Amino acid sequence: MIVGVLGTGQLARMLAWAAAPLGITLRVIGPDAATCAAQFSQHVVADLGDATALSDFARGTEVVTFETESIPVSSLQLVAQRTCVHPNPRVVELFQDRVLEKRTFAKLGIPTVEYRSARSLDELRAAVNELGYPVVVKCRKGGYDGKGQYRIGGPGDVEEAWAALGESELVVEQFVSFVREVALIAVRSLSGDVRAYQAVESVHEAGILRHAVVIDEPRLQRQLELFATRVLEDLDYVGVVGFEFFETEEGLLANEVAPRVHNTGHWTIEGAATSQFENHLRAILGLPLGTVRTLGHVACINYLGAVPSMEAALGIVGAHHHDYGKSPKPGRKLGHMTLVCETHDELMRALAEARELVERL
Amino acid sequence: MIVGVLGTGQLARMLAWAAAPLGITLRVIGPDAATCAAQFSQHVVADLGDATALSDFARGTEVVTFETESIPVSSLQLVAQRTCVHPNPRVVELFQDRVLEKRTFAKLGIPTVEYRSARSLDELRAAVNELGYPVVVKCRKGGYDGKGQYRIGGPGDVEEAWAALGESELVVEQFVSFVREVALIAVRSLSGDVRAYQAVESVHEAGILRHAVVIDEPRLQRQLELFATRVLEDLDYVGVVGFEFFETEEGLLANEVAPRVHNTGHWTIEGAATSQFENHLRAILGLPLGTVRTLGHVACINYLGAVPSMEAALGIVGAHHHDYGKSPKPGRKLGHMTLVCETHDELMRALAEARELVERL
Repeated sequence: MIVGVLGTGQLARMLAWAAAPLGITLRVIGPDAATCAAQFSQHVVADLGDATALSDFARGTEVVTFETESIPVSSLQLVAQRTCVHPNPRVVELFQDRVLEKRTFAKLGIPTVEYRSARSLDELRAAVNELGYPVVVKCRKGGYDGKGQYRIGGPGDVEEAWAALGESELVVEQFVSFVREVALIAVRSLSGDVRAYQAVESVHEAGILRHAVVIDEPRLQRQLELFATRVLEDLDYVGVVGFEFFETEEGLLANEVAPRVHNTGHWTIEGAATSQFENHLRAILGLPLGTVRTLGHVACINYLGAVPSMEAALGIVGAHHHDYGKSPKPGRKLGHMTLVCETHDELMRALAEARELVERL
Repeated sequence: MIVGVLGTGQLARMLAWAAAPLGITLRVIGPDAATCAAQFSQHVVADLGDATALSDFARGTEVVTFETESIPVSSLQLVAQRTCVHPNPRVVELFQDRVLEKRTFAKLGIPTVEYRSARSLDELRAAVNELGYPVVVKCRKGGYDGKGQYRIGGPGDVEEAWAALGESELVVEQFVSFVREVALIAVRSLSGDVRAYQAVESVHEAGILRHAVVIDEPRLQRQLELFATRVLEDLDYVGVVGFEFFETEEGLLANEVAPRVHNTGHWTIEGAATSQFENHLRAILGLPLGTVRTLGHVACINYLGAVPSMEAALGIVGAHHHDYGKSPKPGRKLGHMTLVCETHDELMRALAEARELVERL
């Protein structure tokens, strides 16, 4: 059985690991000849806009999915004419657009940050005036890991922001003073079964996830699951999804949705009864979902720009080491460590050691 | 980093899965062109007695290990001249020989079944006379999964047994009326750290493991760990080892040792904090061992001769499905299912369902 994935990065690689025991072969497609998913997959080197290549790629697959939402929706629609595609291409179209995304939240009664859209420098000025300083300006489409964003602290920044973001359609968001950021990984099966993993507190630096710690707060969990379920059911969504929220003094504000397996869910490989990668495969193949129970006190730390030695990493109690096999570049996600500990105290000690190790690199 | 494995079966395949996240590439060698480990490894097709091929194979590896003890010790010694080999070849030599194995147990004060060795039909007759009926006769070397064994119920069977087992050197064992069979997977690191997983009750049919259930009996566990540690330390053993014991009314009797990852430890992939496969890699690479904590109520069922559909398998609560991608043959190990449940009752229900599913095939 072959499952196709658009994209060839570490998310595709981890999907391939999850597919292997099930006897499923992954077929990945992307423009780079050398990728970290290639080693464990059938690898097609082609642009994600290449209609002929996509058509060949789709042939013989049971289902096609994607590891990035930064793909032309037309490519997904083309593949969907040949085989089954999950999540649905129109969901991707929606979440590629920060304004449509926010409207979906609003429609479903899920609070978001105050925002305005702006298609010109004048509209940007007007939006900033209405929202007040500071604001965060983002491209309406595209951008991830803090790219395609600009913080406007005062009137002097407006023109610079407009130029920096390529004079494109923008969304202007009121700056949120949050207590913490929380993320929730959920999955919905073809038959409508929804399961959510325990939420994490996610800590970003310069827009990139540094680490995520699984949190055990039943009230927060219920609220997050309620919001997630509303979105998944409204969109008839199939597969894994990553939700990011700001937790503020006034409550939760939905920030972003990633219609795919997500960095804030890497901990589920060793830290949950079934990983987000296996559950994504189960969902898109119409199989029963696996248990999402957490297996201890869990955290996950990204390796950015450098990977610690296996010896140092595995010397930390409860540590699991993941090296994506990518060539190092400053700030690039090269791997991660998951800590699964027996007690909260053990986890806090291990996390401190792990952070020190990673910061020393 | 490359780790070499002699053998290309499902154990090599599962070692490759464990190696992948660590950024380790597996290189496997064996005579079959199509094997279930090939897909995830560098695959060398050569006989395990081919000196030139082995020498090339060893080049550039960090360490070489094996997934079967049915290999010429001379091959291991040859590889050991080129690179590091764990476990040590002389350990394999010892456990290839059922008499040397039993002598090791005896030397370390570990009870075994009463036995005699026999190199001729006369010696076999004498041995049977001394031990009384019934006895189990095994080839002194070779044989696994019940192959190379013969049960002698009375005087009429002796000549037939001698002929059936190829008139080779034999070991004659008193028939043990056991309460149950138990197995223990342990691992010893290069620095001498020994860790043992929770023991399992293993249920065999026709000499082949059908299923294994993790047991939680601290007194038994302590006894098994004591025996295992004695053996590992005496042999300066490095890597994972599988011990099989008979539990009788009079106590434990050591049966067999497999100097490798073992079928009775497959449950550790999802059921323990670190799998036997990862801990074997950690041990032979001189890395710190991972936690061996059990993550729930766990059992493992072999797929023999046929693999159930993913849909049926994954419909069972707590089920993880493993398809080795082998072509079906009656009785052949084609995969396994691991059940990781929250309670003992849930596990018993899931195990009954799983057994029914497997028996229906």
